[in-house]
Amino acid sequence: MNRNGGIMSENKIYKPKPVSGFVEWLPEYRAVELQWMDKIRAVFERYGFCNIETPSVEEVDALLAKGGETEKEIYTLTRLQADEHDKDSRLALHFDLTVPMARYVAQHFNDLVFPFKRYQMQRSWRGERPQKGRYREFYQCDIDVVNVDGLPLHFDAELPAVMFEAYQALDIPPVEMHISNRKIVVGYLQGLGVKDVPFVTRELDKLDKIGAEKVAEILAGHLGDAALAGKCIAIAQIKDRDFAAQVRALGVQNDLLEEGLGELSFVMDNLKHLPQGAAIADLGIIRGLDYYTGTVLEVRFQGKSISIGGGGRYDNLAGSFINQKLPGIGVSIGLTRLFAMLLDEGHIKPAAKCPTDVLVVLPDEGRRAEAAATAHALRRRGFNVELYHNATKVKKQLSYAEKKGIPYVWFPPFEEDRPHEVKNMNTGEQTQADPSAWKI
Amino acid sequence: MNRNGGIMSENKIYKPKPVSGFVEWLPEYRAVELQWMDKIRAVFERYGFCNIETPSVEEVDALLAKGGETEKEIYTLTRLQADEHDKDSRLALHFDLTVPMARYVAQHFNDLVFPFKRYQMQRSWRGERPQKGRYREFYQCDIDVVNVDGLPLHFDAELPAVMFEAYQALDIPPVEMHISNRKIVVGYLQGLGVKDVPFVTRELDKLDKIGAEKVAEILAGHLGDAALAGKCIAIAQIKDRDFAAQVRALGVQNDLLEEGLGELSFVMDNLKHLPQGAAIADLGIIRGLDYYTGTVLEVRFQGKSISIGGGGRYDNLAGSFINQKLPGIGVSIGLTRLFAMLLDEGHIKPAAKCPTDVLVVLPDEGRRAEAAATAHALRRRGFNVELYHNATKVKKQLSYAEKKGIPYVWFPPFEEDRPHEVKNMNTGEQTQADPSAWKI
Repeated sequence: MNRNGGIMSENKIYKPKPVSGFVEWLPEYRAVELQWMDKIRAVFERYGFCNIETPSVEEVDALLAKGGETEKEIYTLTRLQADEHDKDSRLALHFDLTVPMARYVAQHFNDLVFPFKRYQMQRSWRGERPQKGRYREFYQCDIDVVNVDGLPLHFDAELPAVMFEAYQALDIPPVEMHISNRKIVVGYLQGLGVKDVPFVTRELDKLDKIGAEKVAEILAGHLGDAALAGKCIAIAQIKDRDFAAQVRALGVQNDLLEEGLGELSFVMDNLKHLPQGAAIADLGIIRGLDYYTGTVLEVRFQGKSISIGGGGRYDNLAGSFINQKLPGIGVSIGLTRLFAMLLDEGHIKPAAKCPTDVLVVLPDEGRRAEAAATAHALRRRGFNVELYHNATKVKKQLSYAEKKGIPYVWFPPFEEDRPHEVKNMNTGEQTQADPSAWKI
Repeated sequence: MNRNGGIMSENKIYKPKPVSGFVEWLPEYRAVELQWMDKIRAVFERYGFCNIETPSVEEVDALLAKGGETEKEIYTLTRLQADEHDKDSRLALHFDLTVPMARYVAQHFNDLVFPFKRYQMQRSWRGERPQKGRYREFYQCDIDVVNVDGLPLHFDAELPAVMFEAYQALDIPPVEMHISNRKIVVGYLQGLGVKDVPFVTRELDKLDKIGAEKVAEILAGHLGDAALAGKCIAIAQIKDRDFAAQVRALGVQNDLLEEGLGELSFVMDNLKHLPQGAAIADLGIIRGLDYYTGTVLEVRFQGKSISIGGGGRYDNLAGSFINQKLPGIGVSIGLTRLFAMLLDEGHIKPAAKCPTDVLVVLPDEGRRAEAAATAHALRRRGFNVELYHNATKVKKQLSYAEKKGIPYVWFPPFEEDRPHEVKNMNTGEQTQADPSAWKI
């Protein structure tokens, strides 16, 4: 590579193209994503959650400790020119933020104060086949509370409230939270005398996707009892305020069921301050992940069925890392998925192409110092300011501001002892102004 | 995995340990790192730089287009259970933010406005042997300006100014920027009639590390001329304001040299608004990367030699991606390295363990709704607020605030019609307060 050749060393042009499943945005859309992240973070902090970041990488053994179906999607790392040293450890990119959080809590157990309330906004990676709405690299915004031994029900109501506020902070269509408690469905099925509860819950989870008729058919086949299958489906179709009365009308007695009803009632009671329709008791919410043990929730756009976030309570997520019982509850916003979906549907209005409030015109090279001083004075007062880079025609400088969406253009005096002027690019209005007093 | 077993499925405990070269911080230090990133970002935006994020992953061919010595440090991705589909593309983690930026500019060329001023604050990965001060995963904060065909000298002065302001925004020991221009040293060596200029510049780059005597010996050996070697070294030892006069006193005539002197003078003139000693002309600054062609700079703590940031101008970094001449200038803050170094030296004062301003006491379960309403009222007024999760003894609730470093504890009335009180945890003072009017 020679000094002047840059990276054109062999004059080969590698024509870049998007890599399937990995997204990037133009500056005017990235600015919106960044605003979203700022707003979500502010809500998380307003409830006292602290931020952590874990490495992108975990040991494969840590990622596999959880088990499950993610194994085949894990990306492992190999150095391009690997040597014998590389066999020592197997490293892989995390596929969610929950396993790294559990590992973090276990590893730093003695340095954390419990209940440990953390938020984490990082990318995760999954090597799945790319398809619409699926990404190989994606941001998630997670909050979790983890405690030692027992975790107060308080948090089962707090986390949905935080979650709702976070969505509300964004300029997106209104959302609704569908909330249930696993104990209700599991207790009910136990009370009914169903033997294979996990099988039935897994099928009930498909109600939205394949419909009640199809699920009834599968359950009837598996249980050998069409009436029982119907009763199983009945619980998952219960919704709304009087959910407890509706459940009790089904006439099943079970302690776990009663516990679940009590918990869900507490949660719904403590979400009453939210707007009408924000939180809906919905016993059809199962959530696929087997480790949920109590409250489960899913966030959807009002009246739509696609999930844009969710979470739930787990009894002991860090149990494979430490000999402590660490129950927790967590919720997650699938940021990249949500953003890409709304972008695709035309819901995201692009921001300006740069954060600049004011472009200071460079009248001529001889007045560079004065123009620079004006720019510095405005910056000191908190404005985002560019000084134009060339003493070229004013028309060209204005055109730069226009193309980048810069709302104000500042004219320092072209001669000594003349006033400053500022032009509002939206209205076209141009007025005298003082850099030490001007306000937008 | 059973429902209640969480991830303890087989009761195996995987004891987590830090992975060498990958760092993570406790919440009280992560909070400081996050403040740093906010401050750096604010400075970058104050000069009108827009943010972009590129995927963590590029095609290996894109990363290798640049050539150089990073090849063996590149981490490639392989799915844990790879299949024939995986052979289609070779993906790898980026090792810096410059190559991805060049690829981004080439790929989105028609959608960007030039000069394109972007900042990027992301992690990069290098599979090097871990050692003190070296990380396999690290944050960099980069700003670059890229233009089509020519890039005004304006930016050679602007970028060091932005860089300095970014460091100044952090609570760290004072820094100084050492600035040179490659054209000076290269032009001077050409004027001296040196044949192997790249060899000599590479050796001059080692002056700080191995000393003038050793470099003189190597150069004398290579050039076969001890006097010439001495002249080569003389230029790299020139510092300070009158650098141009000092260079001219060496009596070498060369056009490129003159161009470099003019450019460096322009840069130094336009940095005069910075504090005394912030910017130092230092012809000993070479910067290893071969693609720099003009201005080069390095940031150091005052009076120290270790580099904590730097950058320079390059003629054509995106040339391997697109058939356009795209000169640029960029500077980079090695955030993780800087943070870890100052943490290690005890310079980083931990923040509180959570962002909470106020802990609202839960007097008893029967007054949960009132306590929650108090917390919401304070949150609406912009405070970060936790409601204690249990109606346990007040002493225990206070102890939670103390352990987490929460500065205020709020007592909603324990009975109807009594006043609210708030306790300042630093002074111990407790006073009556109104949640709709209270200020910190």
